[in-house]
Amino acid sequence: MQTRISDCPIDGAMILLSGRWRALILYYLNEGPMRFNELRRANQGISQQMLTHDLRALEAAGVISREVHAEVPPRVEYSLTDAGRRLMPIIDDLADWWESIQAPANA
Amino acid sequence: MQTRISDCPIDGAMILLSGRWRALILYYLNEGPMRFNELRRANQGISQQMLTHDLRALEAAGVISREVHAEVPPRVEYSLTDAGRRLMPIIDDLADWWESIQAPANA
Repeated sequence: MQTRISDCPIDGAMILLSGRWRALILYYLNEGPMRFNELRRANQGISQQMLTHDLRALEAAGVISREVHAEVPPRVEYSLTDAGRRLMPIIDDLADWWESIQAPANA
Repeated sequence: MQTRISDCPIDGAMILLSGRWRALILYYLNEGPMRFNELRRANQGISQQMLTHDLRALEAAGVISREVHAEVPPRVEYSLTDAGRRLMPIIDDLADWWESIQAPANA
């Protein structure tokens, strides 16, 4: 009984995608792998700490992967996993829905 | 330039649905109109203040409507609008996706 809410998949997905930045991060990574500083520039207004936090949460959920290339200095890139790629059409549907409710029905 | 992020429909939808409760509230209302206290009981753990805040935000976005029935005492019910009903299949897809990433691929 007490685990009902936390077991709910709607709840799980919403917690993962909560906040201003996480869907946007996935949207940018959908166009190809990116480095930390590239992501930071793309998501104008995100702090370094928040971006680190969001990337770790998305990586822990298996939605993005972090790859360290053995160079000097090491190059770290983030990219979508298969699970992340399967999420993108749903985020697109959500964006389309949002646009549809912004336009007045009789405009 | 400075409005780029706030104009993004992904960002808009995510801000609207952010947090533990909003998608769950919509999920319950998808089964029919509910009163405030019914919603509070269904969303175990939500505070009265948070539920009020979330309901107002969803109503302002045009996703739910609030109807006051002229009774003594007045009966206030919340229900999904057409826009809210169109959102539900997308939330379902998101829930299905979440369940798919919880199960190991080779289980």
